[in-house]
Amino acid sequence: MRYYPRPMGKLINELSKLPGVGPKTAQRLAFFILGRNKGEVNELARALLDARENIRYCSVCNNLTEEETCNFCSSLERDRSLICVVESPKDVIAMEKTGEYNGLYHVLHGSISPMDGVGPDDIRIKNLIPRLKEGVDEVIVATDPNAEGDVTAMYLAKLLKPLGVKVTRIAHGLPVGGDLEYADEVTLSKALEGRREL
Amino acid sequence: MRYYPRPMGKLINELSKLPGVGPKTAQRLAFFILGRNKGEVNELARALLDARENIRYCSVCNNLTEEETCNFCSSLERDRSLICVVESPKDVIAMEKTGEYNGLYHVLHGSISPMDGVGPDDIRIKNLIPRLKEGVDEVIVATDPNAEGDVTAMYLAKLLKPLGVKVTRIAHGLPVGGDLEYADEVTLSKALEGRREL
Repeated sequence: MRYYPRPMGKLINELSKLPGVGPKTAQRLAFFILGRNKGEVNELARALLDARENIRYCSVCNNLTEEETCNFCSSLERDRSLICVVESPKDVIAMEKTGEYNGLYHVLHGSISPMDGVGPDDIRIKNLIPRLKEGVDEVIVATDPNAEGDVTAMYLAKLLKPLGVKVTRIAHGLPVGGDLEYADEVTLSKALEGRREL
Repeated sequence: MRYYPRPMGKLINELSKLPGVGPKTAQRLAFFILGRNKGEVNELARALLDARENIRYCSVCNNLTEEETCNFCSSLERDRSLICVVESPKDVIAMEKTGEYNGLYHVLHGSISPMDGVGPDDIRIKNLIPRLKEGVDEVIVATDPNAEGDVTAMYLAKLLKPLGVKVTRIAHGLPVGGDLEYADEVTLSKALEGRREL
């Protein structure tokens, strides 16, 4: 005998495909859904379809957008002489939250990782080149502070510097609020290496 | 400037209404959804709507069903002289998984809880009474082993015994695989009280 009626089993099955959702959580979510009113469940279902249907990559910078170009690329208030290169749209949010950056972005949707067979042509580097002709002074590489992010940064520097643009990398160092005593050696070496005169 | 395009923000907002899903998890789930193909997202959306639309309570036992009566009530293979009373459809699954029970069920959808203002009329006790006329010998009360479950069990015993049916409660005691040393006093008292001759 099946434990659950078919639509319930199907829902649990679909929910358990979500990342971090095991069978127990899927069951809990499914019971939660059953307890909502139809309008609420409709809203959720529509949000899922709407997002999947209407969100695409900005034709200029590859960030998420529902228009042809994203909010940043079409804004008149951003500094168009700066492009910050990040790995994912989540990184754009992180940068924006600092409130310190007012330039444009370029989203790679990944990083170069020879170990995983991801080369420069597998991430969205190509459409960065034509953007440099439009009065860009500096490209800030803000890829993740790990091996793949570093390789990607090196690759971009080699690729872009000959085109006459300044290429910088955001600093590695001790996280603010951290404890020097507990910093790992690599971070501490980087922090030492990146020391600045006071 | 909005961080995300509207449909993405909406999706994150809807997902974060789910139990146990905070803003970070909602964001992670939303990015996962964007990365699925349209067919997969459609399946999930349809499963949500389908479950909410087509699952109802069995008219006999209040268990979940997509028909008028549930799999258990309409089965010809179950022992119709036994009714196990549980608090929720999840408890039905738990009982079924033991493989030791072959009777029918009655799902209360809650338990009596004076503290929370939940009285006997607020849970689905009423439609249990007419069922007893159909050759039921024993009602096994399998409400949760807590204060509310105990109160509910007492209430049911008082209500049903005068109708000439045997009312039993599943045993309290030490969980199998547990450690006597770590059992709480209440469980241990109950285990002692419920001791049986070997």
